[in-house]
Amino acid sequence: MSSKPVPGRLTSVYSDVQTSRLNHSLPLPSVLKTPFDVVDGPPSSAAGNPDEIAKLFPCVFGQPSAMFVPSDGVKADRSLKIGVVLSGGQAPGGHNVISGIFDYLQQRAKGSTMYGFNGGPAGIMKCKFVELSSEFIYPYRNQGGFDMICSGRDKIETPEQFQQAEETAKKLDLDGLVVIGGDDSNTNACLLAENFRSKNMKTKVIGCPKTIDGDLKCKEVPTSFGFDTACKLYAEMIGNVMTDARSTGKYYHFVRLMGRAASHITLECALQTHPNITIIGEEVAAKKLTLKNVTDYITDIICKRSEISYNYGVILIPEGLIDFIPEVQLLIAELNEILAHDVVDEEGKWKKKLRSQSQELFDFLPQAIQEQLLLERDPHGNVQVAKIETEKMLIQMVETELDKRKKEGTYNGEFKGQSHFFGYEGRCGLPSNFDANYCYALGYTAGALLNSGKTGLISSVGNLGAPVEEWTVGGTALTSLMDVERRHGKFKPVIKKAMVELEGAPFKKFASLRDDWSLKNRYVSPGPIQFAGPTANHINNTLMLELGA
Amino acid sequence: MSSKPVPGRLTSVYSDVQTSRLNHSLPLPSVLKTPFDVVDGPPSSAAGNPDEIAKLFPCVFGQPSAMFVPSDGVKADRSLKIGVVLSGGQAPGGHNVISGIFDYLQQRAKGSTMYGFNGGPAGIMKCKFVELSSEFIYPYRNQGGFDMICSGRDKIETPEQFQQAEETAKKLDLDGLVVIGGDDSNTNACLLAENFRSKNMKTKVIGCPKTIDGDLKCKEVPTSFGFDTACKLYAEMIGNVMTDARSTGKYYHFVRLMGRAASHITLECALQTHPNITIIGEEVAAKKLTLKNVTDYITDIICKRSEISYNYGVILIPEGLIDFIPEVQLLIAELNEILAHDVVDEEGKWKKKLRSQSQELFDFLPQAIQEQLLLERDPHGNVQVAKIETEKMLIQMVETELDKRKKEGTYNGEFKGQSHFFGYEGRCGLPSNFDANYCYALGYTAGALLNSGKTGLISSVGNLGAPVEEWTVGGTALTSLMDVERRHGKFKPVIKKAMVELEGAPFKKFASLRDDWSLKNRYVSPGPIQFAGPTANHINNTLMLELGA
Repeated sequence: MSSKPVPGRLTSVYSDVQTSRLNHSLPLPSVLKTPFDVVDGPPSSAAGNPDEIAKLFPCVFGQPSAMFVPSDGVKADRSLKIGVVLSGGQAPGGHNVISGIFDYLQQRAKGSTMYGFNGGPAGIMKCKFVELSSEFIYPYRNQGGFDMICSGRDKIETPEQFQQAEETAKKLDLDGLVVIGGDDSNTNACLLAENFRSKNMKTKVIGCPKTIDGDLKCKEVPTSFGFDTACKLYAEMIGNVMTDARSTGKYYHFVRLMGRAASHITLECALQTHPNITIIGEEVAAKKLTLKNVTDYITDIICKRSEISYNYGVILIPEGLIDFIPEVQLLIAELNEILAHDVVDEEGKWKKKLRSQSQELFDFLPQAIQEQLLLERDPHGNVQVAKIETEKMLIQMVETELDKRKKEGTYNGEFKGQSHFFGYEGRCGLPSNFDANYCYALGYTAGALLNSGKTGLISSVGNLGAPVEEWTVGGTALTSLMDVERRHGKFKPVIKKAMVELEGAPFKKFASLRDDWSLKNRYVSPGPIQFAGPTANHINNTLMLELGA
Repeated sequence: MSSKPVPGRLTSVYSDVQTSRLNHSLPLPSVLKTPFDVVDGPPSSAAGNPDEIAKLFPCVFGQPSAMFVPSDGVKADRSLKIGVVLSGGQAPGGHNVISGIFDYLQQRAKGSTMYGFNGGPAGIMKCKFVELSSEFIYPYRNQGGFDMICSGRDKIETPEQFQQAEETAKKLDLDGLVVIGGDDSNTNACLLAENFRSKNMKTKVIGCPKTIDGDLKCKEVPTSFGFDTACKLYAEMIGNVMTDARSTGKYYHFVRLMGRAASHITLECALQTHPNITIIGEEVAAKKLTLKNVTDYITDIICKRSEISYNYGVILIPEGLIDFIPEVQLLIAELNEILAHDVVDEEGKWKKKLRSQSQELFDFLPQAIQEQLLLERDPHGNVQVAKIETEKMLIQMVETELDKRKKEGTYNGEFKGQSHFFGYEGRCGLPSNFDANYCYALGYTAGALLNSGKTGLISSVGNLGAPVEEWTVGGTALTSLMDVERRHGKFKPVIKKAMVELEGAPFKKFASLRDDWSLKNRYVSPGPIQFAGPTANHINNTLMLELGA
């Protein structure tokens, strides 16, 4: 047990923009500015298999959603002890969630104490924390990153780990805990809520939706924070690359974007910038496309563009593309099997152990990728799929296909591929106005939910297409987001990742425009749009379209 | 000969930021807002070997610098026919140079005609152009890229090519030509000026200093345009990566930045963001460092940081690093020789043909780089140095060295490298306020120089630390920037690239701070600073320090 300040920003020199953002004021939804009551809705169910979820969460299953409404009476302050933890990868706005909780406690639960657990869930288990004060928090307001208390990827899973969490909650006499994280972390938050309640502990647990990937959302939680900022930053860079492509007239830029499980980032960036080609993983999976299909799709457009003298273009690819292609998954599974037991002989006899379809796919892959598959393994001896640079692989496969077509006389252009990966530079940007405001409201709401004794809910802020003042505020039962998966013969609760819906408004808009974008150059260069300029307060296309705006 | 509009932006959809930038007003230096006279200074010489330069440029050598001063009299308009060409790689602001020339002609030489040559110098030789109108130019004001008339890398070198340029100048009855380019293109501009004058043609030639690399500058031309914007964009991304590094606490980010010949971009980005380690090519060359020295320098700092529990950091590397290391150049020369004549046997007997120092260096290189050196060749069969991803190579070499030290017991940390290359996304950004204003002034000045009959000068705008109104304006003899190089037994004129001066103020400031930055984390996250926020009108550190500010 320790309590020392995290040295993160202490040695920092703030840029003028960082300083100006520090003092950027954060508006609150109107309902949070007056006294408010918490009104419960009808009981909730689950996203799937409610009976199993009910069994897994006997204490918290079925809780109603909570909605905040203005009230007349001023409540007497009661002081609380609240902990907060950041879990998983960074997303712009995390610091504002913490600021929101803190400010709620300062304003509505005077005399409260707030603890930040260091380094993610491990900080809870090891009881490593820092007591948060306004002096400590202030330098992080509206700033990117998670370095105020840092994050981690540990999980509270085993009975021993739950025991450790209990001990920490008791030691610190915690009234509540806010878990800021993605789908896994919010599932974990609900398990903690269940566990604490089952032991009659007073500690309540509230989740907050975080992930730049945008794949944690539902009707009542319209978006996860960080997605807006990350997409705006990536779109700015893509817009610049488009200008470059059009000016030079000789490069195809293959841009890989973050998003391993879902392709929301790629779709949003496409809607913002209008690239010539965009691959959406969910569509590839739905249409059961092979790697050859994807290659041909790209190559066909390149050939058509070449006929109208455009030997350049911009192509967006989601990081997780090959995870969406079943044949690749099969090949990798077979390779793992073979590599574990057999010798890879130079003559290639080992290849005969592959099914013929996998053998064909293997031969279709560029040599560098073949070597990568055979040589680079993780500590368990498995092929490292995550290390494959999909954009480079596609460049090589397209190149090979174009060479073939050139020989056949069906293509006569020049092709030069340039690869890009936009990742780290986006997930730690200074939060956009939207993410700054959204996170502050999420945090403030989480504080209020804890103060009204709620547990096992996720902080929910809605009506996001309207001005901040009109946003709705409440909490949604985490169990209502859940389904079960069978693992090792047991049911495990999971919050299903929200994938790109092929029938959803964002994809449909994209699908209705992509043919036009493919041959005409409808490039848009958004410019720096996080919090300056005429669109400083716009929300992203995905959210806007999903809200029906 | 053709005259059709370039379809570049016609199909574009403008973002709100692009639209708002269109209407961003461009202030002019005071002297350009009133009637002005051109006053000549004393005769000029050359940067080196003035006698040889004088021989190479008998008509234009020794010309005085021209300085614009306010005048009383209003001059009678005379109409001109002026051509403009963009040469070489893109740099933010090029479109504003063209706008500046055009507006000058509209305002001070009414009835003039302006032609934009398409696709760089090839457009001059092939007489491919577009007549520029205010409707045509307007959509490109303050916009990034070079796509208004596009650029190219062809050179006007042979007698036949000079002949073609002459024919175009005569066909279009050109009074003047503005060449917007880097050191090579401005040398070429001066050769054209010399050639036209030697033939008593009326066509005058004026250059404009363009390159994001920042290596075309001298006392009278304090900076090249594009450098300011590119560095601001890269610095924003680096700042984000720094936040990521500090939040995650487990990655060393190796960031390669554009700048093959000089390391100005890397130095400027270091001054803006304070990375833990920065490699400046010019210092590596001056100290005659080997690749092992550079690796050890990085590794030593990583070890020291590990002792204070920092197993993360940010490292900036100039794209051209290995060009600064003589032993690498020697190895590559030897490899080219061997690969041209011998078989590379698997047992490695071919290696014995390397000098022992080169053999040692080859063995020191990571396997992937060895393979790249042996396998990837350009069409002439030469090793492709440009394709080596220096940042990945350094990660591997540092990893190997750290493993060694771990075994020796002198290092006990964890090391994970992440590589980045920031290039294309910066050179086509929307121009910063500085570049927008600077370019507009450069173009306006170029028009005025042509109108006063000047040739063989480079447009020079000075006093850049002061508000735009106080900027000084004039032209500098291109021959005064030149020296000669001996190539194929002949003297060739060259404008020497301005390298990072180890005795210059920017490097000295960096050198005085880097030890502090290496162990303490003085990270600065500049944020989006091209043209919004509190520093929207700041100039870059390099320029400010060189101006003595």
